[in-house]
Amino acid sequence: MRIANHAGRLVLLDPEDPSRALDVEQAGGGRFPADPQSVYGRWAEFRAWAASASFDAATPVDEAALGPVAPRPPQIFAVGLNYRDHADESGFAAPTEPVVFTKYASSLTGPRGDIALTPGNVDWEVELVAVIGVGGRHISEADGWDHVAGVSLGQDISDRVTQFAAPPAQFGLGKSYPGFSPVGPHLVTVDELRATGLDPDDLELGCLVEGESVQKARTGDMIFPVPTLVAKLSTVVTLLPGDLIFTGTPSGVGVGMSPPRFLQAGEELVTWATGIGEMRHRFVRA
Amino acid sequence: MRIANHAGRLVLLDPEDPSRALDVEQAGGGRFPADPQSVYGRWAEFRAWAASASFDAATPVDEAALGPVAPRPPQIFAVGLNYRDHADESGFAAPTEPVVFTKYASSLTGPRGDIALTPGNVDWEVELVAVIGVGGRHISEADGWDHVAGVSLGQDISDRVTQFAAPPAQFGLGKSYPGFSPVGPHLVTVDELRATGLDPDDLELGCLVEGESVQKARTGDMIFPVPTLVAKLSTVVTLLPGDLIFTGTPSGVGVGMSPPRFLQAGEELVTWATGIGEMRHRFVRA
Repeated sequence: MRIANHAGRLVLLDPEDPSRALDVEQAGGGRFPADPQSVYGRWAEFRAWAASASFDAATPVDEAALGPVAPRPPQIFAVGLNYRDHADESGFAAPTEPVVFTKYASSLTGPRGDIALTPGNVDWEVELVAVIGVGGRHISEADGWDHVAGVSLGQDISDRVTQFAAPPAQFGLGKSYPGFSPVGPHLVTVDELRATGLDPDDLELGCLVEGESVQKARTGDMIFPVPTLVAKLSTVVTLLPGDLIFTGTPSGVGVGMSPPRFLQAGEELVTWATGIGEMRHRFVRA
Repeated sequence: MRIANHAGRLVLLDPEDPSRALDVEQAGGGRFPADPQSVYGRWAEFRAWAASASFDAATPVDEAALGPVAPRPPQIFAVGLNYRDHADESGFAAPTEPVVFTKYASSLTGPRGDIALTPGNVDWEVELVAVIGVGGRHISEADGWDHVAGVSLGQDISDRVTQFAAPPAQFGLGKSYPGFSPVGPHLVTVDELRATGLDPDDLELGCLVEGESVQKARTGDMIFPVPTLVAKLSTVVTLLPGDLIFTGTPSGVGVGMSPPRFLQAGEELVTWATGIGEMRHRFVRA
């Protein structure tokens, strides 16, 4: 199953033709509200309904109208240094516990459109994003995927100047300028990935700047895979339906290059993950 | 004006007798919903209505039923090292820019009740909490208070082991175990503070463990006062109605004592601020 935020309304993509989608509020006769955030609080009920939905009333998807799959998450967890090669290029030892900060919700945006540059050095970070469908605390690693509604693709866009302006704890601000947290294009369930022969624990993902591949990796190289993150986070906090976990970026960020490379006005960033899809953003002067 | 979250419903305290309050949804004939979070999105309209409310239908407040004044904030900003003497006792230089991390929303709780200890070392941190009433970006310092619905009292309870388990960026997790973010008892508007002769930029606040005063300070000693925080945060992020800003703690935390002192099962923490009120929490074994 694939869902998306289409002009602020929850839609269910037609499995036969993902260029078309069903408006969930209309198709369900009001059983589920249009708000894409609200579905995560009723995930099991929604899945059951969606499994038998008819796509006769599906209409064309306008890709420019896609928004973030969870527009108002109660909590956003972002994991730093979760790939060994990225910890290396960042000058940190590989962590023994997940390094967790936040991206503020006002920075969320959809999978298409312009992103305003900031006065600092703006960098890319492709990431797999997991969306919590069933909350809880003290979730076991074995049960980790059962608490995830599905996965999406994210960018953890970072202003490296703001990020390091106030040690020891400024990560969240530097990564939360407006538009710095694109998520999309769809949320894809784990069973959907498996049905198409993909391993949700080993997806390929990457990004390109102006057509040049700068990051390319497999989520199987994560130090803390998704079920481990769900388990470790939930030993501390209560996970809530609709929470986002930005799972960390692999090597290839601009600040790690020699000389460092940052995004410039007019440049296009294309972000992709096998089985999930693609995002396209153009960087513009503020 | 004072408002509170009473058993999950928004109430307006009777200015003549704050042991009584008006249920806003009932008194307004449904004009405002009962949800205490929703009022911040309609702050100007609510203030206008509240100014002419009749308290004839006010009923007694049950202090044990008070919840956090903003139970589902879209964003929570927590400021570290915002008092010079606390930066000193923590072994850090006084910051030149606000040090910002998050407390996750699932850790919010009300001004009364039990808080479960964690396996780590649990410490207190009294803080003034500002609640955003009118969002925005690039807000000037001069306009800072105009964007604040009011202030409340908070505790930034911290598990010092988790907080420092994964440098460089683990503050949020160590401060977000369930119950680690009490906020209350009321939200008090800035004009209400001024009307009672108090300066919102120089309130006295503190806390006591088992009756012994451990923190006592004035918010006038903040390195970055509330309007400065609103201005500086909004140069980066878009502030949203109902956001919380935990403004930092003064000196006197347990980890700074020699030898360090942490909260033990059975101990009571009383937190107070002049003009706002008091919170009382008992720490218990998990």
